[in-house]
Amino acid sequence: MPTETYQADAPLLVVSAANGTSPDNSHNHDDHHRLTRLTDAGPVEVDLDTTLSHPGSVRINVKGAFIVDQGSTTPNSSNGRGSPIHHETKDIRLPNHTAVVSHIAIDIGGSLAKLVYFSREAHSTEPGGRLNFVSFETDHIDECLEFMRTLKSKYQKLNGGTTSPSDLCVMATGGGAYKYYDMIRDVLGGVDVLREDEMECLIIGLDFFITEIPREVFTYSEANPMHFVAPSDNVYPYLLVNIGSGVSFLKVSGPRDYERVGGTSLGGGTLWGLLSLLTGARTFDEMLDLASRGDNSKVDMLVGDIYGTDYGKIGLKSTTIASSFGKVFRMKRQAENEAEDSGGLGQKDPHRHLAQLRHGEAGHSHDEDHLPSENDHDHVHENSPPFSSADISRSLLYAISNNIGQIAFLQSQIHGLSHIYFGGSFIRGHPQTMNTLSYAIKFWSKGAKQAYFLRHEGYLGAVGAFLKRQPRNWGRRGSFEEAEAAALQARMQARAQAVAEDDEDGGVLVT
Amino acid sequence: MPTETYQADAPLLVVSAANGTSPDNSHNHDDHHRLTRLTDAGPVEVDLDTTLSHPGSVRINVKGAFIVDQGSTTPNSSNGRGSPIHHETKDIRLPNHTAVVSHIAIDIGGSLAKLVYFSREAHSTEPGGRLNFVSFETDHIDECLEFMRTLKSKYQKLNGGTTSPSDLCVMATGGGAYKYYDMIRDVLGGVDVLREDEMECLIIGLDFFITEIPREVFTYSEANPMHFVAPSDNVYPYLLVNIGSGVSFLKVSGPRDYERVGGTSLGGGTLWGLLSLLTGARTFDEMLDLASRGDNSKVDMLVGDIYGTDYGKIGLKSTTIASSFGKVFRMKRQAENEAEDSGGLGQKDPHRHLAQLRHGEAGHSHDEDHLPSENDHDHVHENSPPFSSADISRSLLYAISNNIGQIAFLQSQIHGLSHIYFGGSFIRGHPQTMNTLSYAIKFWSKGAKQAYFLRHEGYLGAVGAFLKRQPRNWGRRGSFEEAEAAALQARMQARAQAVAEDDEDGGVLVT
Repeated sequence: MPTETYQADAPLLVVSAANGTSPDNSHNHDDHHRLTRLTDAGPVEVDLDTTLSHPGSVRINVKGAFIVDQGSTTPNSSNGRGSPIHHETKDIRLPNHTAVVSHIAIDIGGSLAKLVYFSREAHSTEPGGRLNFVSFETDHIDECLEFMRTLKSKYQKLNGGTTSPSDLCVMATGGGAYKYYDMIRDVLGGVDVLREDEMECLIIGLDFFITEIPREVFTYSEANPMHFVAPSDNVYPYLLVNIGSGVSFLKVSGPRDYERVGGTSLGGGTLWGLLSLLTGARTFDEMLDLASRGDNSKVDMLVGDIYGTDYGKIGLKSTTIASSFGKVFRMKRQAENEAEDSGGLGQKDPHRHLAQLRHGEAGHSHDEDHLPSENDHDHVHENSPPFSSADISRSLLYAISNNIGQIAFLQSQIHGLSHIYFGGSFIRGHPQTMNTLSYAIKFWSKGAKQAYFLRHEGYLGAVGAFLKRQPRNWGRRGSFEEAEAAALQARMQARAQAVAEDDEDGGVLVT
Repeated sequence: MPTETYQADAPLLVVSAANGTSPDNSHNHDDHHRLTRLTDAGPVEVDLDTTLSHPGSVRINVKGAFIVDQGSTTPNSSNGRGSPIHHETKDIRLPNHTAVVSHIAIDIGGSLAKLVYFSREAHSTEPGGRLNFVSFETDHIDECLEFMRTLKSKYQKLNGGTTSPSDLCVMATGGGAYKYYDMIRDVLGGVDVLREDEMECLIIGLDFFITEIPREVFTYSEANPMHFVAPSDNVYPYLLVNIGSGVSFLKVSGPRDYERVGGTSLGGGTLWGLLSLLTGARTFDEMLDLASRGDNSKVDMLVGDIYGTDYGKIGLKSTTIASSFGKVFRMKRQAENEAEDSGGLGQKDPHRHLAQLRHGEAGHSHDEDHLPSENDHDHVHENSPPFSSADISRSLLYAISNNIGQIAFLQSQIHGLSHIYFGGSFIRGHPQTMNTLSYAIKFWSKGAKQAYFLRHEGYLGAVGAFLKRQPRNWGRRGSFEEAEAAALQARMQARAQAVAEDDEDGGVLVT
């Protein structure tokens, strides 16, 4: 996809914090301090704009924001063990944001920790900067914290030590914001860690993407896999389905007006966990790759397998999946019985045989889905059913996606919602996943409801936390000098005027 | 549980067929012929009552019907391969039914074929007979048909060849009624096979159990695992959740007034299929036994695992399952990394290691859940996480049951139903399954809705088909002699009078 630049309709975004500070007194406590740019190229002193317009809010100038499709100047990393650090190249460029951003945001879920931070760009003569999106596996939270420590030390060094360590703060959400709270503070040297509610961050993040970022939200169909939807303010009410390790269903009636109406434990963690047991795949992407090559009808029981035909009376086609993995039990035992009858398998060694059944090895040594195994001494029998890793992966991907799609539809029925947004790290832009979710919504709603996807689907919570910055030490920062305070005052007034003009200019005020 | 005898409130059941023949002309075409009892003890000639009261209906006298809790005089069988033939001892005794029943009923699903037939009792001096319930695996349909052939040959031999083969007919439902139609006819020598709609049979069967059979329907709670609900006619509307290989959700508004409102492919077939791959268990009961001993928190990611505490704001306890199998992926890779670091596992042999991870063998050789394997040469490593078969089984049982319970609740919300009946062969009277389903309904409905279970949960469709008998060859039976026809006429009139009295006597007319 070519890189394209789109102009956002709304040039300025003001996000108020949940404590409900009214916009009326929003220009009375402007923050300002000198800072150097956080870049990979080294310290670059910048003429500072005002970052924070009022307590409990952060101003991000999204005028002209666009998604950077190719390349990235942000750091990448790996520990050499199957890429626990996943760096998204889909940064968002904010060409008109010149203010200092003195916080980073992290959303620590059950499986992944998602990091969002703002940076100036190295080797760039253009103004502005970009939002960076990086994720780590929660299991490797130490590597994530090390990465954050690097960001912080750059930040401090660039400041020449004039600001206190608490100037960089961490906005944290997700369960790990609680579980790893002390660890984050310790590793980052007593940095301020502000914890925000997970669900609230999700919808703040989603609102931001829906309303502000062009080429972010899209619908999926096989004919048109990425049909973009223009940013719009008129989006409520909608259902947000956030699919991480588990799944949450949120009814969103308006900005900050939401309710968690349900959830299911059958989510990404289930797919990853079961497939890691069943296929030997070691990364999510490996699993999705397997799924893309599989044939679920080898393991699923279809309506046609039971009826020999359609079950037309109730609208079930012969290809409809009647039972996920419904063919496995019988085929497996059949094979075992045959093996016993032929003396090929004794009771002595069921495990060996099971392993073959699982991997579809026997008689399929040249199958492209066969797992790499140089010294495959499990390879013995000829009669095992072909439960290939690819078929199993596709079946389970279908099962989990269909199920989420169905529950989403039922929730949308109960709550009268016709727009359904799917977010979370489960989707990963995988066509079959999106196709299944879309199809489920279309099938159950008879075309009345629409599934929407996002390119930054995994970062709703992290972006929400990023936008929700509300420093705890507001107004009691010890490092400010008297002179700076006076300068701040002057700038603040000028800024207040500019903000008022900006707002008239079509700014979005989200409260 | 002691055998107890309960008197049904409604002594007589008349079930009309779906073609809507009105009861007004129901006594004009009475059927009658001489027959001997179908018993295991041998031929016993009986003085025949009238079996069929009018075209399209069958009269089963359920006065005094009760469930036989202990013992059975019906035949049992096994092919020595893990009991594909499952004989229920929970026969239903019909002490007042003396009429000949000239049909058997079968419900052939994706995994199981369920057979219902009526028999006189051997070694019994009491009148009446009993309904027998036998199931076979659909994969072994040949054994099921052989069993039916035995029933038929007894039936014919006892008749002394005076009736044509078509006198015994087979009522068939489920997908297999279509798939195996020709095979059934062939094996049973051209017997009449009448196919009935699966969903309709389900609700006819359920209605029968709800309204007629004492100690059949019950609610489950840990304190009172089998709290019986008295038979009642006032049951509509309700939701029937039939859990076989797949799951169907039926909204039932009245007798024969139903709609299939949804379904999910995550059903019994999914549990059996995945657990046969993951645990090596070879029968359903083995899997349920494993589940009853497992600890799902070893593989499931709980809210507490993510938050370190409750997520009180949205009502999630720390013990709530956030992600089924959500712990597996990280633990598995962690173990693999450790093994690699210590040189214990090379890339050469991932399968062997995976097998250990799956079965929790390493370091757990004395685990009671360890699969039997005398020559376990997979047993090498010490550091593998303990994914025992029992833990995996419990986790998956919870996941599937919870999910069905949740969808059932959502469907009941959409359709305004507060009574939810769970049927199908998935449940098998397993306490944890029922507890999970009950809990899900209670949890999501905040106590407003109630889950009901049945002791013959797997036989709703088969019983429905049994009660729905409507011989195709009605009125054109060639074997009737003139004299018999005259005698029939006389009996018919007498019977019509008796039926009228019975009906006044509190009979149930289901149309």
